Amino acid sequence: MSATDRIIIDCLQYCNWSRGIFEDMQAGGVSAVHVTICYHEQFRETVSNMEQWNRWFHEHSDLIIPGRTADDVRSAKAQGKTAIFFGFQNCAPMEDDLGLVEILHQLGARFMQLSYNNQSLLATGCYEAEDPGITRFGRQAIKEMNRVGLVVDMSHSANRSTLEAIELSERPIAITHANPAFWHRAKRNKPDDVLKALGESGGMLGFSLYPFHLNGGPQCRLDDFCTMVAQTADLMGLDNIGIGTDLCQGQDDAVVEWMRNGKWTFETDFGEGSKDNAGWPEPLAWFGGNRDFGNIVEGLRAKGFTETEVDQVMGLNWLRFYENSFGPQN
Amino acid sequence: MSATDRIIIDCLQYCNWSRGIFEDMQAGGVSAVHVTICYHEQFRETVSNMEQWNRWFHEHSDLIIPGRTADDVRSAKAQGKTAIFFGFQNCAPMEDDLGLVEILHQLGARFMQLSYNNQSLLATGCYEAEDPGITRFGRQAIKEMNRVGLVVDMSHSANRSTLEAIELSERPIAITHANPAFWHRAKRNKPDDVLKALGESGGMLGFSLYPFHLNGGPQCRLDDFCTMVAQTADLMGLDNIGIGTDLCQGQDDAVVEWMRNGKWTFETDFGEGSKDNAGWPEPLAWFGGNRDFGNIVEGLRAKGFTETEVDQVMGLNWLRFYENSFGPQN
Repeated sequence: MSATDRIIIDCLQYCNWSRGIFEDMQAGGVSAVHVTICYHEQFRETVSNMEQWNRWFHEHSDLIIPGRTADDVRSAKAQGKTAIFFGFQNCAPMEDDLGLVEILHQLGARFMQLSYNNQSLLATGCYEAEDPGITRFGRQAIKEMNRVGLVVDMSHSANRSTLEAIELSERPIAITHANPAFWHRAKRNKPDDVLKALGESGGMLGFSLYPFHLNGGPQCRLDDFCTMVAQTADLMGLDNIGIGTDLCQGQDDAVVEWMRNGKWTFETDFGEGSKDNAGWPEPLAWFGGNRDFGNIVEGLRAKGFTETEVDQVMGLNWLRFYENSFGPQN
Repeated sequence: MSATDRIIIDCLQYCNWSRGIFEDMQAGGVSAVHVTICYHEQFRETVSNMEQWNRWFHEHSDLIIPGRTADDVRSAKAQGKTAIFFGFQNCAPMEDDLGLVEILHQLGARFMQLSYNNQSLLATGCYEAEDPGITRFGRQAIKEMNRVGLVVDMSHSANRSTLEAIELSERPIAITHANPAFWHRAKRNKPDDVLKALGESGGMLGFSLYPFHLNGGPQCRLDDFCTMVAQTADLMGLDNIGIGTDLCQGQDDAVVEWMRNGKWTFETDFGEGSKDNAGWPEPLAWFGGNRDFGNIVEGLRAKGFTETEVDQVMGLNWLRFYENSFGPQN
């Protein structure tokens, strides 16, 4: 498989979407992106965000297509376009209404985090002091998500809740954007027991390139990142890892503040930042946008990954996961 | 084509849905029904109604399937089930938001009336004193409905608005449930010029069996009804007529009051009824529910319709219309 044949899938971005970014995706050979379309929005607001995406699909049909199935990734690849898969970083869009899970899936949602930093109706977020695990409503939501083909994403959830989600879910789950805590200790990164359980259950980890999740922050070296990828492959299996950059290209500081504070606090929560470092982190030298996936490919090769292994990490593992995850439960 | 091979499509019902009624549909050999899922509900409430239908599809999958395309009708026929197509009797579900047209289509909506008795944001209803025609927003809505494949239904609209909708729409429209005014004068029945324009544009009329729309009301004779069908075929073409019974099986009187009054009046509007006759009309002797379509077949035969013509009126005309109407515009 040559570089131009490689299927690249990025399983998490939240950019300030524009034609320029869609052109970057095309230039970077990105065949599929899981895009965050909501953090704190409830159902009606999420639908407005979907309406905006429908307009973009219409206006930029030469660059992007709606992503619903693994075949859409292959179709995008064949056309030199990017398939866009919708995801939520919180369960706010389903409100308190189990029937909305199927409705949201019908509208194209394919990933939903059960919580975002805080306690939700379903699960605990990674910033809470206590983690009582998956709630009663959460158990029903996981069951319904399994039935319709909406992937459980525990990227911003606390560890007990994550382990319980892995156990309760009858289909493999995902942590679309995080790194191992063994490499860089951060509330958003995941301990070995979570990663092992995730790998053993057939789940997927997407490696984040968000500087707060990286050893050395914005100064993290590509070589160090790729060493971590190799170590994680040893820990949880080469079949269970992919890319989930958490790329937030072109967003201004008001957006990261809104992501952290939403509607839940009138005080300012600085999330992974601090009062003196409240905005977006500096970008990496070797990954600043959708044109830079080739650098990761080079880094993995330099680390000794075979071409087949590089293909798996860059896209084929996610493609297999998409194939098995988005349709009705067997 | 034998009776068991005949495809029966009823292009309007609003029953008090239950397993019993779905069993009636099966027993009556009804392969597709356009069901009203909203009158006055805005978007979020309409979605709740869709959630209820999703549950019914799940619980009664041996009897009903979601109807989205003409192929779903054929598939339902082959399985001895009924394909259920969603429609709205008003434009309330799209609120003031053009982007909701595509969202509603994604969720399965296939028919939308531009107005229900009253003036709407899009068009005038048949009970208004004045009919200024299709509004500015209405023109945009028709264009977008054409684009995505959501059929314009003018059953409860006023005549000028209806003629303008026929003219403005680039795809044929429908009057899913009404009768000709030449047979029975009623605000809901349609004058010759509307029916002729509808037929010439490739649109469809579904004959209503709601007693208020019938000559003689509940005492209307099958023979008289079938004479009217033959006369309407002469007026607008045999290819452009079908059945849209307006069957409201099992509903209690509170429902017809709500249909008429919705949220728009605190006084009581009696619609087609009156203070002394406020509830549902008495049912017809020869059509009381989904098991009775065979009586219409017999009536049409007795009137001299050939088997081919009977097939067209009972379902094949609607099937062709479904085939051409529900996908993206060419």
